[in-house]
Amino acid sequence: MKYFASVRYVGCRFCGFQVQKNGRTVQGVLTDAAARLFGVPVRVSGCSRTDSGVHAEAFCLTIEPQEGGKHIPPEALPLAILPYLPDDLALLSAKEAPEGFHPRYSVLGKEYVYRIRFGRLPDPFLRGRVTMLTRPLPENALEAMQKAAALLVGTHDFSSFMHEDAEGKSTVRTISSFTVKEEGELLEFSVFADGFLYNMVRICVGTLLEVGYGERTLASVEAALAGHDRTLSGITMPPDGLYLKKVVYQPPFHTLLFGE
Amino acid sequence: MKYFASVRYVGCRFCGFQVQKNGRTVQGVLTDAAARLFGVPVRVSGCSRTDSGVHAEAFCLTIEPQEGGKHIPPEALPLAILPYLPDDLALLSAKEAPEGFHPRYSVLGKEYVYRIRFGRLPDPFLRGRVTMLTRPLPENALEAMQKAAALLVGTHDFSSFMHEDAEGKSTVRTISSFTVKEEGELLEFSVFADGFLYNMVRICVGTLLEVGYGERTLASVEAALAGHDRTLSGITMPPDGLYLKKVVYQPPFHTLLFGE
Repeated sequence: MKYFASVRYVGCRFCGFQVQKNGRTVQGVLTDAAARLFGVPVRVSGCSRTDSGVHAEAFCLTIEPQEGGKHIPPEALPLAILPYLPDDLALLSAKEAPEGFHPRYSVLGKEYVYRIRFGRLPDPFLRGRVTMLTRPLPENALEAMQKAAALLVGTHDFSSFMHEDAEGKSTVRTISSFTVKEEGELLEFSVFADGFLYNMVRICVGTLLEVGYGERTLASVEAALAGHDRTLSGITMPPDGLYLKKVVYQPPFHTLLFGE
Repeated sequence: MKYFASVRYVGCRFCGFQVQKNGRTVQGVLTDAAARLFGVPVRVSGCSRTDSGVHAEAFCLTIEPQEGGKHIPPEALPLAILPYLPDDLALLSAKEAPEGFHPRYSVLGKEYVYRIRFGRLPDPFLRGRVTMLTRPLPENALEAMQKAAALLVGTHDFSSFMHEDAEGKSTVRTISSFTVKEEGELLEFSVFADGFLYNMVRICVGTLLEVGYGERTLASVEAALAGHDRTLSGITMPPDGLYLKKVVYQPPFHTLLFGE
């Protein structure tokens, strides 16, 4: 059987999702845990690569044990695998993967959230879990960032908002929503798109922050979009504040998997 | 100069506040950090001992470098010491300690909070930071626990709510407030008292939870209070959910230190 699972992890001690030769990864840890549980080799495939230090509230993946492994009903998988998992990773739910479903190619869109805390001194409880900035934003920064975020919404070539080393095929993506709001003591950016280029969220947020600080105009955001040149956009923000919040699948998969 | 400081720490990787031969402690880490900053030996004294794994939102203490050390104005101390501190500990504020002030003996009262999350599966983001229970509470549990908490309010001999090995002088304490409420997805107990016996909060919460689960009557809570016998009260809850939230000092110290 091929299982679909939704997993949550704290990114701090992971070198991202994808297996690496050296470095603890979500895919590596899950592949080992599932192999021990099922007693046979297992293939784990994810909905995306997340970078080192990036968190996931609900990352989606499939777990496919080779024939002959232990039989475990899907709804029992999250508890059954728990003893084999470390503290910073847990399955939220599992189902049998529908016929023709692929955790990556069946994605309709994904939502990422980026959280920033402003303060002169660090808060130990938020270390690694939000990005901490010491310099306060000026008044009206929120409104300016919201206007800049609105410019990014739509179907654009986001090649200016991509890490230079990224191997690109198409660099056109559609952002259907990009909001900026205050959430308690945090500043929270939420972006939903059909796909994301390498480092795209972190560069978009870095660019919007420069607008917030008054160091970049709205016109320069438009110029960055039009220019297809990484040097036209803002800094790449650190991974600490970045969360993969939600994955939405194409019909009929999403309803089959989440009942929504 | 003797500094007063308020510090915040995540308890997970600390063996409590007080220096131990083996084990990383808040007092040990702070003493070393301050000695490196001031360039002379330093004495650190705290407002209480917290146990291994217990967190502090605002623990209070004094830092007293020997004569001849580097001169640092109190308001500059939190940032000055930051490079010498680990990620899970930070100073929130510092002042010059008033004449006659002692971080422990000048305490008027302290507030502890205990946080519980109920759920079939663990949440990696809350590991070590709340106590996770899988068995749900029955309906009306909140009201029953609130009634039981009210029985603990007042001046009582809390010897039934103390770890057996505790060396006691007086075991009489005054709880002036004990509330139980739902806070988002968490159940939150808050207790304010003039002092706490060893493990007192954790045993009080364990006892109230047994009331919540319908396994203990209000009469048995009264009997535990009257009986002066540890076997009459409930289980000792784990440290994960316990936070020292606030320390209130006797007048005029509290106003001098916090301006409240």
